Amino acid sequence: MAYLDHTATTPLEGEVLEAMLPFLTDAHGNPSSAHSFGRRAKEAMEAARAEVAEAAGAMAARVIFTGGGSEANNLFLKGFAAISKPGRVAVSAIEHPSVSKAAASLPGWALRRIAVDSRGKLDLADLDCVFSEPVSMISVMLANNETGIIQDIAKIAARAKAAGVRMHTDAVQAFGKIPVDFAALGVQAMTLSAHKLGGPKGVGALILDKRLSISPLIDGGGQEFGLRSGTENVAGIVGFGAAARLAAVRMRAEQAALLKLRHRIEEALRASGAVLFSGGPDCLPNTVYFSFPGIDGGTLVVELDRKGHAVASGSACASGATEPSEVLLAMGVQPDIARGAVRVSLGKGCDPESVENFLIALRSVTSGLLAILQD
Amino acid sequence: MAYLDHTATTPLEGEVLEAMLPFLTDAHGNPSSAHSFGRRAKEAMEAARAEVAEAAGAMAARVIFTGGGSEANNLFLKGFAAISKPGRVAVSAIEHPSVSKAAASLPGWALRRIAVDSRGKLDLADLDCVFSEPVSMISVMLANNETGIIQDIAKIAARAKAAGVRMHTDAVQAFGKIPVDFAALGVQAMTLSAHKLGGPKGVGALILDKRLSISPLIDGGGQEFGLRSGTENVAGIVGFGAAARLAAVRMRAEQAALLKLRHRIEEALRASGAVLFSGGPDCLPNTVYFSFPGIDGGTLVVELDRKGHAVASGSACASGATEPSEVLLAMGVQPDIARGAVRVSLGKGCDPESVENFLIALRSVTSGLLAILQD
Repeated sequence: MAYLDHTATTPLEGEVLEAMLPFLTDAHGNPSSAHSFGRRAKEAMEAARAEVAEAAGAMAARVIFTGGGSEANNLFLKGFAAISKPGRVAVSAIEHPSVSKAAASLPGWALRRIAVDSRGKLDLADLDCVFSEPVSMISVMLANNETGIIQDIAKIAARAKAAGVRMHTDAVQAFGKIPVDFAALGVQAMTLSAHKLGGPKGVGALILDKRLSISPLIDGGGQEFGLRSGTENVAGIVGFGAAARLAAVRMRAEQAALLKLRHRIEEALRASGAVLFSGGPDCLPNTVYFSFPGIDGGTLVVELDRKGHAVASGSACASGATEPSEVLLAMGVQPDIARGAVRVSLGKGCDPESVENFLIALRSVTSGLLAILQD
Repeated sequence: MAYLDHTATTPLEGEVLEAMLPFLTDAHGNPSSAHSFGRRAKEAMEAARAEVAEAAGAMAARVIFTGGGSEANNLFLKGFAAISKPGRVAVSAIEHPSVSKAAASLPGWALRRIAVDSRGKLDLADLDCVFSEPVSMISVMLANNETGIIQDIAKIAARAKAAGVRMHTDAVQAFGKIPVDFAALGVQAMTLSAHKLGGPKGVGALILDKRLSISPLIDGGGQEFGLRSGTENVAGIVGFGAAARLAAVRMRAEQAALLKLRHRIEEALRASGAVLFSGGPDCLPNTVYFSFPGIDGGTLVVELDRKGHAVASGSACASGATEPSEVLLAMGVQPDIARGAVRVSLGKGCDPESVENFLIALRSVTSGLLAILQD
């Protein structure tokens, strides 16, 4: 089986597992315990916090570990709303559901979706329109999980700052693939997740400006600066730290290699009549998103899986859904074309050979499905 | 180092790690993915759900996996409050902070603490008093994390049912140590945690009656029946399942052995003038909680740690605190005595030899500290 779905989740790096194993065996202490088992766990957790902070351009004391990226997104939106007067929240029209649904859930708050263009880039004219009325917070993702499109977050954050609006960015898909620098982006809060960059599932982080207060989602023992109670997932956090450190070292070379593979796939897709929803210099190096008019995306995924190639239709996080991708609809894609959407996301283990094999399988499957269609 | 702090957290069982390892290596799929990697992850997760359900006397479809016990407690209390009219919530006076603080945080709700007696048992007369006025929900823990006291949850739940009050129980410390049966207890919601019974940190569960609706804490992709979004911690969940299965098999023999060790410690403590806060047939087999008048609990923990014995002062989950235990204060213990509280919690690896070594160290440390005190 060839794994071409690194945006859904990545295999755990061997070195990450190695870093985690002591905390899944002998070093089993609770970081809140005063004895030596506890101190060892606490020290490892704080070292991991420094590693994640370093890789994300933030101070360690600003990193709040959570149970994942979705929790971090909810923590910011609900935690900020809980200590604010109800007002308006604006999010881009292509946010992950953990941002868009959390924003829609805030009691008494009005939600405004900021338009995107046909490539999924935030519409800056619409952003100005949003800022012409009072807004309390906005959230715009750094890189999209379906198309890989990268937003100009620093520019958007500068406009938000000028308008006196707090800004959050979901950097889950960007972190580990492109440089991410919390300080340089100028946002007040940023979400990260470990399992998108070779770390374990079940660990994420919210990076929060020290001048910003929020309310916790989870009350209790007061862990994570009082903002996320519960015994910390020490092994997972240590794995997150190791994954962030490794990604920082390897990112440039790895992503350059993946970009070449992406270009090869894009070229083949264009030649075979596919519609491309991704691409260009402001797209994640690993992501190709496309549709073959007339072919259902879900069917294509199943057929490719039978031939040994794991790819995604729409977003894995919202699977089971038969509705066309909301991201594509926001980009103005017709529902029939959007229903055909398939995402290939490259990562470790992908090489020219695996890509050629995938393209052969894709040609075979699509010509078979199109032949049935024409019967 | 001898580890005598199994209530704070337990070492991961070797067989649990073995069950987890495939999901930390090759079987790295996202359970929401439609391809074979995703299906394998999903199947393993559902098998673990069945294992946890079986061990807890519940149907698998009622098990909602979370990032830990604190999250599950918050999910029930805040999730039920979010879909209800603000009313009164009652919790026992000795709940874990993830229950008591979550209950105190509910906007517009009145919090009533239900009294306990000098052993920490819920005061049933006070419970009747609570039920004499309208109450929307109550939460009473099955076994206390400091004293190990076990409540008569079935009896309390029957009274709650008669009063038309929804009831939750935090079974985090009980699960794996005494039989826990969701159906037999008659509660509408129950919290579990993996790392208290040889499973990994960062995984818990809320078991929820199918007739009860709650609102999620974390919105997003709709995982866990829409009640807990975010990519599931597959390896952690698989570990939780394995730990629950193993605990069910081994509990009776293991806990009988621990009970003998507990009785030996209690006997030695009584002989040396300690005040005991725990004990009796309705106390967890593994827990001893005591104080030496005049000796600070934190100091005793540090000195015992130096001699190679890891024990806890008060609750690890609220460490850093210099205040006397609220549990002991609720039991009517004088603050000076409560400040001396030390908890020994037995588990795997504890045997008669390690207990005798601990008792020797304890005698040496306490006599040294008492000598300083008398100078």
